[in-house]
Amino acid sequence: MDSIRWDGIALHLLDQRQLPSKTVWLTIQTWEGAAKAIADMAVRGAPAIAITAAYGMALAVRSGANRSLAAQGLRSARPTAVNLAWALDRLQSVADENLAQEAIAIHEEDRQICRSLGRWGAPLIRGGVMTICNTGSLATGGHGTALGMIRSAIEEGHSVHVYALETRPYLQGSRLTAYECMQDAIPVTLVADGMAGALMADGRINAVVVGCDRVAANGDTANKIGTYGLAVLARHHSIPFYVAMPMATLDPLCTDGSAITIEHRPADELRTVRGIDVAPAGIDVWNPAFDVTPADLISAWITEHGEWTPTRL
Amino acid sequence: MDSIRWDGIALHLLDQRQLPSKTVWLTIQTWEGAAKAIADMAVRGAPAIAITAAYGMALAVRSGANRSLAAQGLRSARPTAVNLAWALDRLQSVADENLAQEAIAIHEEDRQICRSLGRWGAPLIRGGVMTICNTGSLATGGHGTALGMIRSAIEEGHSVHVYALETRPYLQGSRLTAYECMQDAIPVTLVADGMAGALMADGRINAVVVGCDRVAANGDTANKIGTYGLAVLARHHSIPFYVAMPMATLDPLCTDGSAITIEHRPADELRTVRGIDVAPAGIDVWNPAFDVTPADLISAWITEHGEWTPTRL
Repeated sequence: MDSIRWDGIALHLLDQRQLPSKTVWLTIQTWEGAAKAIADMAVRGAPAIAITAAYGMALAVRSGANRSLAAQGLRSARPTAVNLAWALDRLQSVADENLAQEAIAIHEEDRQICRSLGRWGAPLIRGGVMTICNTGSLATGGHGTALGMIRSAIEEGHSVHVYALETRPYLQGSRLTAYECMQDAIPVTLVADGMAGALMADGRINAVVVGCDRVAANGDTANKIGTYGLAVLARHHSIPFYVAMPMATLDPLCTDGSAITIEHRPADELRTVRGIDVAPAGIDVWNPAFDVTPADLISAWITEHGEWTPTRL
Repeated sequence: MDSIRWDGIALHLLDQRQLPSKTVWLTIQTWEGAAKAIADMAVRGAPAIAITAAYGMALAVRSGANRSLAAQGLRSARPTAVNLAWALDRLQSVADENLAQEAIAIHEEDRQICRSLGRWGAPLIRGGVMTICNTGSLATGGHGTALGMIRSAIEEGHSVHVYALETRPYLQGSRLTAYECMQDAIPVTLVADGMAGALMADGRINAVVVGCDRVAANGDTANKIGTYGLAVLARHHSIPFYVAMPMATLDPLCTDGSAITIEHRPADELRTVRGIDVAPAGIDVWNPAFDVTPADLISAWITEHGEWTPTRL
């Protein structure tokens, strides 16, 4: 399963807002279109938005757009995932005529990074594994990060059962992770976010594994809202808590989690589900897209090069 | 706001499945109708289903139904809340001709119990207060239990801001608690269940207060799924965690939480939201309606008689 395709002229994105009900591909021909797809979450997941932004820069030069304006527009599409800035920084010194090739390289490298990360992480994945949000093929160039560790463990012949948290408000768990697991015949059970504690107490969870959107130098980790609570619950139940972290998600200039900008999303994401009202109109809402898990609640960070160790100051 | 009305002949229930979009009253004329309204969650909340069952018994004798069959049918409509069994036990020795009057008494007493519980609990409620599910007028004869403590604190002139967890899968928080608070001009912010930890870490929460469906003699407390996780998070953040407990919710014959039957609800409650698919068809689901919070994570149980202390064995 892939969700990002480049045909040499245009970018094609699988519209993740419509999964699993509908499989709709968007054709993107401008950098503005790529920025909008990122901001509106047609594509999401830190590695996937970095790849999309890279193709967005290729589209910008093809259409004769102002390169620095395009880079600025893409960079500001979403604020928390550092991979987006990393990809744009990498492209900065690339000549116009080589941009498309470099975007393709970023895309291909991401697949390799996920494969490598998955193999390093696979020995940690056995039995019941809880995860939040979507960190699979849909969130990356392919294979996935946290879900990539799970895929690799299964490829190596181990028995794994995924407990996918539905991940309100955007339902990446129920809509995307559940869908990917079923497509790949990975055993999966869907649970509501509030069930995590009871499921751990029930003894079914051997490990929690999550992705990340930005990791500070000290190891504090920004990821999907709800991750921090899972880490506290895992600690309470003495369950290991792993972060799947491509090195591009490390922000070495960020000393600790307090320096990470947390994006707040529109209130209607909580007031409605797929366009249907589930709360009184106009109710006040607190809707951060991410939270920060302090490093001391994390058992290990798994990268494409093996385990990473934060700088303890 | 009330949600249960008895007109001397029929029982009228505000259909809580349709709030806040629609205000629909169901007319119930048989005990089977009352049992179905409980099982299908048209009425929910431990005190409210006890009141509904009591009126159901009055309907049974009026229609000449077999009393013990009706009592059995109502008792098995939902397994976890002990108030249901308590109300039916109380009615067992009441003569046929007095059943309606006794049901009215149970209904009226519940309002008084909530008022008294609210006054006892009010001093614990200041500033930011997190709650799960719905424990207000809609869950009781009126005023509410945990939400009753909040209402009483506000009536006494204190400043309170409610953080209502949306409470998947049934969304009692977003649909019912948010609605009740807005109706009564109680300051309220809606948050997703997964946001509880981040909100506590943000320093906005001074107390967590929840209702209960069955409390064992040792204090282990069954309540809406998600409550246990909140108690762990509250402990981690040194935030007090209170249970609003009408004495009828205590089950003295139940020595500890392991003896409490936990109801599992249909998978489609998680696969869909208000009839809209949010997950792949046929996905496996774990959907317990309740979890059990061990007594040692609970700061206090507040009853209509003041603080209750469990039997420490």
